[in-house]
Amino acid sequence: MPGTIDFYFDFSSPYGYFASLGVDALAARHGRTAVWRPILLGVVFKSTGQSPLLNQPLRGPYARHDLERTARRLGVPYRLPEPFPVNAMAASRAFYWLRDRDPAAALAFARRIFAAVFVDGRDIGPPAAVIDLAGVEGLAAALEDPAVKDRLRREVEAAMERGVFGSPTIAVDGEPFWGFDRFADVERWLATGGW
Amino acid sequence: MPGTIDFYFDFSSPYGYFASLGVDALAARHGRTAVWRPILLGVVFKSTGQSPLLNQPLRGPYARHDLERTARRLGVPYRLPEPFPVNAMAASRAFYWLRDRDPAAALAFARRIFAAVFVDGRDIGPPAAVIDLAGVEGLAAALEDPAVKDRLRREVEAAMERGVFGSPTIAVDGEPFWGFDRFADVERWLATGGW
Repeated sequence: MPGTIDFYFDFSSPYGYFASLGVDALAARHGRTAVWRPILLGVVFKSTGQSPLLNQPLRGPYARHDLERTARRLGVPYRLPEPFPVNAMAASRAFYWLRDRDPAAALAFARRIFAAVFVDGRDIGPPAAVIDLAGVEGLAAALEDPAVKDRLRREVEAAMERGVFGSPTIAVDGEPFWGFDRFADVERWLATGGW
Repeated sequence: MPGTIDFYFDFSSPYGYFASLGVDALAARHGRTAVWRPILLGVVFKSTGQSPLLNQPLRGPYARHDLERTARRLGVPYRLPEPFPVNAMAASRAFYWLRDRDPAAALAFARRIFAAVFVDGRDIGPPAAVIDLAGVEGLAAALEDPAVKDRLRREVEAAMERGVFGSPTIAVDGEPFWGFDRFADVERWLATGGW
């Protein structure tokens, strides 16, 4: 789809949350729209051998500090939910199911999920929490549908085939940029067409 | 020492090399000077459980691509040396030994090491290569001196005690910023005194 950029993220990723607050405006500044693509880092980490950032010695304490600092710089609400990481499977399945029906509703749902996790500190792991936040009939049944489960699985596999391994990753015309701290690079790439 | 910022890096780190090309100018723009502090990521990784970035599935190929892309953006020469990672132990020991004698010579030596690795693709692992690049009498003996070996060990330990786990890391008045892509944050912090 021309005119779009791909925004890969995990609903459990704090840097993905920060990215979600700015990615649409970033795309719009360059006449693009962002296609939101939730993935599950837990699946990716099985391939890369990574462990969740916040659980790692030295890196974990730094990341917690940097997340607070980044939120202050951006001037946005932020808290680390408990428990963390949250299980984003139901939310991610719900997102793709919703998007096939109503893309705008899916986007609004994704924003509510991120706010529930990183503003309100809610646990969005249980399907009931996701169903509540979606407010759409039929989701409870959909979350049990093998086709819906398979859809998410294929999305995660497709992302990994494109080289995605972290959240957020933004791909501009196939060019991947990993990390919220690469938004400036994404902006340059969009403005110049690459280098 | 007031007026300084700390620049932690591994001579084997490509992003450390990019940082080395800009850190002194960055510091100078804010009336500071950068104190160069080579560390050994191999020692740090034993504590954090990390493995070298370029060897990791998905992350490795992305990093190789991003390094080439970053070099093009900066307009600086860059190549990944073979073998990689290089063994930076002799170079790091030599750096601290030199600095205790002549800080300016140590800085010039560090630049020659980085250029040898990432411009010329030389293997700076063997002490003979380091001695050649230093061009200073007494270094061959110093590299065998237990006190010189211990000095580097203590520097790496002190860095880890300050929370350093990656290259480059810049610390401004105790505030750490990990990653070459955080230079903009360092610049903001220096300009504003923090947030």
